[in-house]
Amino acid sequence: MTEDTERHAMKMAKKKAARDKIMATKTDEKGLVIVHTGKGKGKSTAAFGMIFRCIAHQMPCAVVQFIKGGMSTGERDLIERHFSDICQFHTMGEGFTWETQDRTRDMEMARAAWEKAKELIRDPANRMVLLDEINIALRYDYLDVAEVIAFLQQEKPGMTHVVLTGRNAKDALIEIADLATEMELLKHPFRAGIKAQIGVEF
Amino acid sequence: MTEDTERHAMKMAKKKAARDKIMATKTDEKGLVIVHTGKGKGKSTAAFGMIFRCIAHQMPCAVVQFIKGGMSTGERDLIERHFSDICQFHTMGEGFTWETQDRTRDMEMARAAWEKAKELIRDPANRMVLLDEINIALRYDYLDVAEVIAFLQQEKPGMTHVVLTGRNAKDALIEIADLATEMELLKHPFRAGIKAQIGVEF
Repeated sequence: MTEDTERHAMKMAKKKAARDKIMATKTDEKGLVIVHTGKGKGKSTAAFGMIFRCIAHQMPCAVVQFIKGGMSTGERDLIERHFSDICQFHTMGEGFTWETQDRTRDMEMARAAWEKAKELIRDPANRMVLLDEINIALRYDYLDVAEVIAFLQQEKPGMTHVVLTGRNAKDALIEIADLATEMELLKHPFRAGIKAQIGVEF
Repeated sequence: MTEDTERHAMKMAKKKAARDKIMATKTDEKGLVIVHTGKGKGKSTAAFGMIFRCIAHQMPCAVVQFIKGGMSTGERDLIERHFSDICQFHTMGEGFTWETQDRTRDMEMARAAWEKAKELIRDPANRMVLLDEINIALRYDYLDVAEVIAFLQQEKPGMTHVVLTGRNAKDALIEIADLATEMELLKHPFRAGIKAQIGVEF
């Protein structure tokens, strides 16, 4: 070995030892409360990636869409066509709030979605439940964040993962989350006049 | 309507008008260079979500894994079992660099993965090509970022999307990206002694 590759091997061996030591302390398993927020892209997409991961492992799971259009109808079609035995899919929202302009109806929709969400989370057969764009409903106070948090803390089965997405996540929700990620926008093609494209945004 | 719901309706109507006006200026379509970076979770997962979105729309696509373990073997299995006609999957990496400690071999692996990536991107049948964890190979200078950028700018077919993931994305790559997102870590369950769990991390 040259001196350079030898130095590299030593550096990497040290990294590996440090990493192995850290990982050895991580021994617990539990159902997580996972939040994806921020103005960047990938909040719903990454949550869907986790749902596909559960499907890959044959873990029963479910999706409640709080806002229609929060994610691709393509994903819904794919799941319903191939994996409806393992993943339930419920679209409760009726369009972004600025499309409907009817607060009373929006609140009823959000409430119906939350009732469905509670039913799915209470069923211990479901290993992961995705509440897509629930943060929008919480932000506009269509749902009470204290009620959602109390339910997650008191009634969520110990091994169930619940994923909550949408920008402007409430601080109180991030506070009680086990895993929270902020998707930050570095660059967006809309700024260059590029429209939403199939396969990328929907 | 009460005064409150009326005010809400007006506010939402204004938002919708502003949004519609912005969206009307977004008329172009093009293949995007998309970068997912940052220390948070969801970089590969969101990229996989886009691959599943392409699959949902019957758009031929491909994945090259530069680092084995960069994503779930579950996802690979799911794609190979159900969607191998529409998505090619190539795992070229041999484990994280700190697992192998052999710079020469790592460089050969990265080079082989890049040659495969170029072949897949040049084929205009592929509408999206995911280069998973290529940023790791670029960071350790296993690949030359200038070479990768030159290829994307000069040889990528106009309508092909290329997604590049991994932490520590080079500034020069973000510079030429159409869409770049930083996944920022707000909270991570490892800090509470929770280990990597099926369905969440793999």
